[in-house]
Order: sequence, then structure tokens, then C-alpha cells
Amino acid sequence: MNGARPLTGAEWLRPDSPEGDVVLSSRIRLARNFAGFPFVGRAKREDRRQILQIARRDIMQGGLAAEVMWVDLNEVSPLERSVLVERHLISKQHAKGDEPRAVAISTPDERLSIMVNEEDHLRIQVIRGGLDLSGAFKQIDEIDDKIEAMSDYAFSTRFGYLTACPTNVGTGIRVSVMLHLPGLKLSGELEKVKRAASGMSLAVRGFYGEGSEAVGDFFQLSNQTTLGKSERDLLIEFEQQIVPKVVEYERLARRSLVEKRRVILEDRVQRALGTLRHARLLKSEEALEMLSFLRLGITLGIVEGVELSTVNNLILLTQPAHLQRLAKHDMEQSERRIERATVVRKYLGG
Amino acid sequence: MNGARPLTGAEWLRPDSPEGDVVLSSRIRLARNFAGFPFVGRAKREDRRQILQIARRDIMQGGLAAEVMWVDLNEVSPLERSVLVERHLISKQHAKGDEPRAVAISTPDERLSIMVNEEDHLRIQVIRGGLDLSGAFKQIDEIDDKIEAMSDYAFSTRFGYLTACPTNVGTGIRVSVMLHLPGLKLSGELEKVKRAASGMSLAVRGFYGEGSEAVGDFFQLSNQTTLGKSERDLLIEFEQQIVPKVVEYERLARRSLVEKRRVILEDRVQRALGTLRHARLLKSEEALEMLSFLRLGITLGIVEGVELSTVNNLILLTQPAHLQRLAKHDMEQSERRIERATVVRKYLGG
Repeated sequence: MNGARPLTGAEWLRPDSPEGDVVLSSRIRLARNFAGFPFVGRAKREDRRQILQIARRDIMQGGLAAEVMWVDLNEVSPLERSVLVERHLISKQHAKGDEPRAVAISTPDERLSIMVNEEDHLRIQVIRGGLDLSGAFKQIDEIDDKIEAMSDYAFSTRFGYLTACPTNVGTGIRVSVMLHLPGLKLSGELEKVKRAASGMSLAVRGFYGEGSEAVGDFFQLSNQTTLGKSERDLLIEFEQQIVPKVVEYERLARRSLVEKRRVILEDRVQRALGTLRHARLLKSEEALEMLSFLRLGITLGIVEGVELSTVNNLILLTQPAHLQRLAKHDMEQSERRIERATVVRKYLGG
Repeated sequence: MNGARPLTGAEWLRPDSPEGDVVLSSRIRLARNFAGFPFVGRAKREDRRQILQIARRDIMQGGLAAEVMWVDLNEVSPLERSVLVERHLISKQHAKGDEPRAVAISTPDERLSIMVNEEDHLRIQVIRGGLDLSGAFKQIDEIDDKIEAMSDYAFSTRFGYLTACPTNVGTGIRVSVMLHLPGLKLSGELEKVKRAASGMSLAVRGFYGEGSEAVGDFFQLSNQTTLGKSERDLLIEFEQQIVPKVVEYERLARRSLVEKRRVILEDRVQRALGTLRHARLLKSEEALEMLSFLRLGITLGIVEGVELSTVNNLILLTQPAHLQRLAKHDMEQSERRIERATVVRKYLGG
């Protein structure tokens, strides 16, 4: 950051990830707080500064030092912070304000990010391409240990890890996958899956988490509560039962579309490609929607000559902050729409 | 027809016609009835048969014989009749039923068509590319004379030519132009022009005349009444005042779009081209709408590498009957949508 180490390709955008046709990424997040300090919401500015110092020492001088870079969010521009949001490395909330706060990011893979002074003192996140929750868990567990080797966490023998929000108390873990479900959407079966998920206390959210809409048929599926289940149970259930089931449904829906409504599917996919290759103005939501159809077309072999990684990259590159960073200056919304269309044409050959 | 003389390119589709950027075609139609016979609506089958015989003799054995072919509408398939409707050579009404009726068409230019036993005994039509009403009038006047040299028309010294519908009595002339007005549509000024037209007793209709909607921003502008004005006055007013005014407004609107909303315009035009080049299913209305944008783009130099004549031809070729004639078999609507998209891609390189 600060121009020194620019972000490159996030590992989770790679196209050859396990179940990558349906699962964009797997994410595990741990909520942790240092013992002896109030939660962030109640912490004074001086408390936050101390928390930041401790976190920086634990992360940058402990076992993680070699792989991460430290980004003081008050020292980077609002645009750079928005880029981090778009890359799923910090939350929208964490990008705002001027309180002492930071994020540590592993480079260049961007698998690990640790938000400091977000809702909890530490929000440790590991994100990996495709369905790889066990891999993510193994990694985050080691990271957690390395930090705990430096400082004491707030922990209750009765409740487990103490967190700012009660829904995180216990293991403090949140497990989620980003799914691409255009097949279920087109076949009208998505609502059924959503109802089933909600019946299992799973949350279904849009591309940018809580409160965001599901544009382009990308859905984030996550556990709602962390109390009362062991991390292992939760993981196994999620990775070996729930997600594979959804993946199977989605693939069935896609196959059925190919068999029964091939022309309609080809029409949708090709029109999306036509729009992406020809538009001179592109809104953010429309770009994501068209890229979603294109992604579907590639996984089904309907579109040739376009790489899945190109689409995955465009999903990030067409976001507002990425566009402005690429153009190296701030842009009004109308200007961004032109730039977005230009970037898309550059990558897809319009 | 009947496989013997297939229709080729209609002259009015040529791209180098006068004011061809705005005026697709000029059309003059005369309503004539033979003396001594009831109007078609009141004629018995035997009357109609006699009228048909007289018309055939007057047209095919008189001064027009060399240039026209005779099509007995009861001897061609419904599909061929629909093709004639789509080429504006006969009316929808004339295509229907099994009464004795025919059409004489000049080939290969298709400038002249004479419907026999439509609403009047004869409906003589001359259609020419671009704005060329005087040319059309000169031609139709000669044709009219050639027929009148063979038979007497029903004529009243008080009213002029007698016609089945009172609005045609007098000169029996209808003058119309097919306009392409996407600029006025996009700029929101079309309603103003329509109101002005209606204030001057002009009718504004869609691409297929009475009752048809204005798809693709193609509008047919015609006089409403024929009584009380000399043919010459009507023509001069139409060709030298009214139409040039609309053409001027349309060009101003287009120029203004290019200057003030260039990107929006390019976006619309390019998206249309993208859809035409990529769609696998195309509805008739959508095709016409997209071709309209493409046509606009070509006249403004926004689109390169596509000829105006290609677009003009596609406007006809994408119509249902033309599609089926091209494919050499009847098709369901869903099949036509596939075929339409295929034909468009073939011509526009998708």
C-alpha cells in the first residue's frame, strides 16, 4: 500500500479452485479480543491506540511477520480503503471514520487479513479460492495460535471467546462461502434453497455481505450463530454436507438448462457477452450481472475464447474503487460508467 | 412468384436515395374504380371475377405489360401473400380470404404494385426510395393514364373519382412517406411533431400502416383526406414543406445528440449492434428496434463496417414471412426467433 506494495491478484480469484464452477471462495473469520481492554465500541481513543500497538507488535513481530504487510487505515486514502473493501479484505464499516485502526494483509496472495479495531479488537479472516474450508481453518488456526502466543485473549471458561456481538461469542468463528448460483436462479429453485438455508440457521447474503443485494447471482452463505457448536462440527457440516448439496443442486440446474432450454441459455449468455463487448456505459450492477452470465457460459462450454480468470478479475476490476485506482484519479459516477465499459472491452475484446 | 420470378431487392431499400438518412421511402397510392360495377364491398363473386378479368386485360395487355407480373392471390400460398404484405406490395386485408383478387407488381424494382379487388377495384401504388414524391407522382400519373386508356373509371364531375371510402373520393390520392425518427424519439420531441402533424390533418402510423405500432422509430406520415385539394397542391405541400421540415428537425435532433449526449448515443447504438451480433433468440419487434439504432449509428458515422443497405435489407428479411421463405418451410414463432437471430448474425457477422 501507500504505493509501495500494490495489491496484485487475490488468490481466491484463481479459476482452478476446487468446485470453482460454483464456489467462488471459502472464508473463515475469527473474532478475538485482547484481555484487559474494553470492546472497541466502548473503548476510548487512547484504548484503541494501545490495542492497535499491541496488535501491531503481535502481528508484525511474531510468527506472521514474514508474510503480512501492515496498513494503518488512517494513513491511506479513502480510495485505497474502498479498494480493500472491494477485495473483501476489510468491511465497509472498517473503511469509515478516523479512529485508530488498521488491517494486516498477507501478500501477494491476500488470503489472510486481520482487521484491528473493527467491531472486535481482531477480526482474523482467511479467504481461499473454491471450496476449501478445511484448508482455511488449518491456516487460521495456526495464525490464531501465533497471535495468542504473544498476548492473552478475552476468554471465559463458561462461554468461550468473548466478543462484542453476542452472536459471535463461543468459538467466535464465522464460516462462509461465496456461491455463484445462476442455474438455480434461472430455474426458479433459488427460493427453495434459501428457505432450506434459513431453516438450518444459515444466512444468505449478497456479494458484499450484510445488507448488500445479491447482484449477478452471487450469494454468500454463512453460519448465523457460533455458540453451542464446536468449530469442527460446524466446519464438517458446512464443508461436507451443506455446501456440496447446494453445489450439486446448482450443477443439476445448469445441466437441466443445457438439456432443456439450451437456446434460451445460449441467448442469455451470448447477449451478456454482446453487451459487455459493445456497451459504452456500464453500471456496476449490470456489469456484475452480465459477468455472471458470462461466467455461467464459460463453465458450461457455451462461450469459448474467454478465460474464467478474466471474468473473475473483471468482477473486481469493475468495482468503483478499483476503476478509479486503475485510472489513477477520482471519477464521478458517470465517468466511472464510461471507464468500466472501457476496461471490460479491453479485457473481453469489444 | 410461384417460384418463377422470385422477388429480389425492392428499389426503395437502396441506401443512396434522396434524404435517405431520414426518409426510407415515398409512396403514392391512387384509388380507382371501373365504371359500371359495384364497389368491391358490394360486389358479388361474379362481379369480382369480371373486374379481375378487365383489370388483368388493362394491365397485362396495355402499356404496362412489359414491366409487370400478375399474381393471382388465390394461386399463391398464404406465406407468399405474407411476404407481399411485408414488402408493402399488398395490404394485410388483401392477403386474406379467397375472393377473386390479384396484384400486379413491377419487377425487379417493385416500385409499382396494383392491387385488384381490394377496397377499390384498383389500388395503384408507386413506392420509391428516399424522398421522391414528384418522381412517384410522375410515374403513377403515367400508369393511371395507361389504364384509363383501356377502360372508363367511375368518375363524377362534381366529386371527382368515386371510391369505396369517402375519405378517398376526389383525387383518390394518398401520399405518404416512411420516416426514420430515432433522433426525435430520443430527444423527446416526437410528440411535438406528432401533434403538429395531426394539426395539419396528417396521419402518423407505424411501420405497417393503419393500426400498426411504431416499432423501431419508423413512422408513416400520410395525408388524411383527398377531397378539396388538387393533387399538385397536396404534393408540393408534402414534399417541399412538411417532409423537409420533419427531416430538418430529425437531423437537428441527431446532431444535438451527437454533440451533447455522444456517449449515451454510442452506448445505445453499440449495445444494439452487440445484441444483434450475439442474440440467439430475436423477437420481430426487438430486431426492428435494434436495427433502427444501428441505422442511426451508421448515418451518424458511429458504426463502421456495416452498410446501410444491409440494415435496410435486414428490416425486411427479419419479418416472419421472409424468414420462412428464406428457410423454405413454415416455422413456429419460437423457431422463427432462432432463425431471425441466425440470419441477423449471418449478415452482421456475430
